Amino acid sequence: MKHASFGAMPCPVARSLEHVGEWWSMLILRDALHGYKRFDEFEQSLGIAPGILARRLKTLVEAGMLERRQYTAKPPRYEYLVTDRCRDFETVLHSLLAFGNRHFSPGERNVVIVDSQTGVEAEPVLIDSRSGRPLSDPRFQWAAGPAADAEVQRRYAKASA
Amino acid sequence: MKHASFGAMPCPVARSLEHVGEWWSMLILRDALHGYKRFDEFEQSLGIAPGILARRLKTLVEAGMLERRQYTAKPPRYEYLVTDRCRDFETVLHSLLAFGNRHFSPGERNVVIVDSQTGVEAEPVLIDSRSGRPLSDPRFQWAAGPAADAEVQRRYAKASA
Repeated sequence: MKHASFGAMPCPVARSLEHVGEWWSMLILRDALHGYKRFDEFEQSLGIAPGILARRLKTLVEAGMLERRQYTAKPPRYEYLVTDRCRDFETVLHSLLAFGNRHFSPGERNVVIVDSQTGVEAEPVLIDSRSGRPLSDPRFQWAAGPAADAEVQRRYAKASA
Repeated sequence: MKHASFGAMPCPVARSLEHVGEWWSMLILRDALHGYKRFDEFEQSLGIAPGILARRLKTLVEAGMLERRQYTAKPPRYEYLVTDRCRDFETVLHSLLAFGNRHFSPGERNVVIVDSQTGVEAEPVLIDSRSGRPLSDPRFQWAAGPAADAEVQRRYAKASA
């Protein structure tokens, strides 16, 4: 599907979504981070149509989230490996997992995050590493950054007023 | 667009994305969390086609992310208010913001999160609140939860092997 681009929007959330926000993309990244590499592995894991999977993989390679590497010459076959950027994305997936477990799986948590050394389930919370305070504290607000244009400055001046 | 449903997948990430993962939805939630309430406010902020906006708002209301409330009787007009569930979603948006700033806005950060009492920029990091360890520590792994079926158990037995 052709859809509006978020790439020109002056917002880092929009820029992230431009690269990883299409339907299926985050589930492909989830699988890649869990060791899936080959086209047919993703196809089987997700039940996704091959044409859509090919387009999503191409977008994710272009975004630097996956690296495409040939693993046989005849016939030519490729696998998709996670990059450091993809590993860094796991924070977003962890947040979506915790949110899903809190709100859309009442009494039915089928996937959790555990400390593999203790077996204890993790309780993910986003904090400010400088102060140790949870980001959910209302003192944290979105604000215009150093590269903000007049529109962004107006927007977040209003939001924090 | 009609697309495959993630609602039946045994994965909390898929369940979250089923409700909030459509193109535009997370940006609508971002705006709602920043005080935007009315149809024309979202339309103007996002530059989104009215038909798509109406469909996304409906999905988000059904998901319990927004509450639709009539604010004038003649003509009937509605506004969309954030719910506690939507406020809890801010963790995901914060994670996407930090990721976008790290990877897709080099030297051009136009939106940041700040501690409004000190003006200092926050450094969001996801930790396990029990142990204080960052979730990026490889000891944290995805694992089958209490409601996992055989497929999920096989999947995550493999992943942690």
